[in-house]
Amino acid sequence: MEYETLASLGEAESLKRTIAHLKPGDHTLLGSGDDAAVVKAEGSFLVSTDTLVEGHDFKTTWSTGFDLGFKAVATNLADIAAMGGKPTALVVAMVVPKQTKVSWLEDFAKGLQAAIDRLAPGCEVVGGDLASGSEIVIAVTVHGQVHSSPVTRSGAKPGDIIAVAGKLGFAACGLALLQSNQEDLIRSYDDWVIAQLRPVPPIAEGALAAEAGASSMLDVSDSLSLDLARLAGKSNVTMAIDSKELKGFEATLDLPAQALGFEPMNWVLYGGEDHALLATFPKEATLPRAFKPIGQVRAKSDSEVLLDEIPLAARGWDSILGDES
Amino acid sequence: MEYETLASLGEAESLKRTIAHLKPGDHTLLGSGDDAAVVKAEGSFLVSTDTLVEGHDFKTTWSTGFDLGFKAVATNLADIAAMGGKPTALVVAMVVPKQTKVSWLEDFAKGLQAAIDRLAPGCEVVGGDLASGSEIVIAVTVHGQVHSSPVTRSGAKPGDIIAVAGKLGFAACGLALLQSNQEDLIRSYDDWVIAQLRPVPPIAEGALAAEAGASSMLDVSDSLSLDLARLAGKSNVTMAIDSKELKGFEATLDLPAQALGFEPMNWVLYGGEDHALLATFPKEATLPRAFKPIGQVRAKSDSEVLLDEIPLAARGWDSILGDES
Repeated sequence: MEYETLASLGEAESLKRTIAHLKPGDHTLLGSGDDAAVVKAEGSFLVSTDTLVEGHDFKTTWSTGFDLGFKAVATNLADIAAMGGKPTALVVAMVVPKQTKVSWLEDFAKGLQAAIDRLAPGCEVVGGDLASGSEIVIAVTVHGQVHSSPVTRSGAKPGDIIAVAGKLGFAACGLALLQSNQEDLIRSYDDWVIAQLRPVPPIAEGALAAEAGASSMLDVSDSLSLDLARLAGKSNVTMAIDSKELKGFEATLDLPAQALGFEPMNWVLYGGEDHALLATFPKEATLPRAFKPIGQVRAKSDSEVLLDEIPLAARGWDSILGDES
Repeated sequence: MEYETLASLGEAESLKRTIAHLKPGDHTLLGSGDDAAVVKAEGSFLVSTDTLVEGHDFKTTWSTGFDLGFKAVATNLADIAAMGGKPTALVVAMVVPKQTKVSWLEDFAKGLQAAIDRLAPGCEVVGGDLASGSEIVIAVTVHGQVHSSPVTRSGAKPGDIIAVAGKLGFAACGLALLQSNQEDLIRSYDDWVIAQLRPVPPIAEGALAAEAGASSMLDVSDSLSLDLARLAGKSNVTMAIDSKELKGFEATLDLPAQALGFEPMNWVLYGGEDHALLATFPKEATLPRAFKPIGQVRAKSDSEVLLDEIPLAARGWDSILGDES
């Protein structure tokens, strides 16, 4: 049996079949099909772009097309949430080998839409581009709207509470399970594996944090230690966190960590890809329910980040070096 | 001597050096460096994305980093112009091999900025992403503002004048010169080669066409014949063009065509990558000076496009098949 591939169908027909799995959104004035799309915006829009590359960010033996579509959208939406915004529209540029099955692309589109439906209903894929190359590259650009001011990385003040919404270490644990190649463990601990393949960041919580007065925020894409250091650097403060407050995160990783012989706190501190929201709030703020306090902002000292008063090294994922650095 | 590469410097430092060559724009409320940028928009924004892939869309033996930065911006700006909009902001996602010299990336950034300075001053690269992979991929997403309604592909009406602003066949001629591998010809006809490497589409003319009442518009990215068929299909009309009106375009290609033994009209009809603006205007409209009439819109007939009353095949570039199709 012959499969239909991009080479056999051509760009136009492959795109048409792929786009058929996408749904219209609430913010789109003109969708895909012209030279550009037109999206509603009140005064300003947020924009961010993020790329996934085969072999570096994912393997097709671990991730289906659906997984990759879901992950590409989820990780990009987190950047809008991290500004306190609500996502409105996405564009998706893809490079795939010519021999890629069109059914894989359709599965990818279903993953894009599933992530939108779950995490940002009303958002739409308003444009895209499909080209051929030797490895899969997925470049998503996401747009959003802030209703007051955006929450940047530079507003944390001494005395503010540091808090996290979402998961820490789950995706890193899932990666370790996949890398173990132990099929029985991968099946037993599928929640953690799924967190790696199809992360579910707390998207709606970004706008809630902004409403609650968050003074700074970002999404934990690389690791808690690295992203705390980024907030500290941009805000010119020291971030002091308390390991007691991280016990809850650690506990969620206990079973798979024991099975693999890993130390779960390493995933909490140095694991990336969960896209939790890391924010600071003025002491008097009422934190949105999803945010759990983990420490306090201090006046700048010699260290950017302290864990139980001891300097914490900023370690995590570097997308060029492709490993822990 | 050791060159500094992406692998030796890492993502953060490589990005920092690259970004240093970019200038702030007029529409940016918050530039790169946070989770997302914030760009001004009045009621709505235009968005479009386009990708260049090494080996398919360019060769590094022909194009410098500067050329590629320039071309990536120019081709994307044309999509905003084709909607009658003015470009406001770009984001640039790049995949490059780890061993890429950081000086190449810096040269690329200079090309990005040079295209902005020449074609859309006030526009800014407000964000980006840098990742490593086996081949170079450049995915640019461009944003713009329309001041009245966007000019789509679907508004052409029987009786409208068909007109073109910009060049036709120049970039295809330049490609043929490069493919000839004849160094003397490539040097003699460098205007045409440069049109292939660093195209200069008529960006400001897009908004002028909208003000003049253009009923439909797109940029000629694939070929005149193919893009006329696209306008015809979306507008449900027939496009009748006159070869006499194309003589001026043909004449600009005469010398290199003779030198290579090519038929210049083939480049005019079937060559892509000049990103001329192809628009239709009501008969009573005063065409902006840069637009040259080439024919007239008719009620839909059996053929989408007629050249001197004879059906014209829609042929051009397909980004998946990677050759004339």
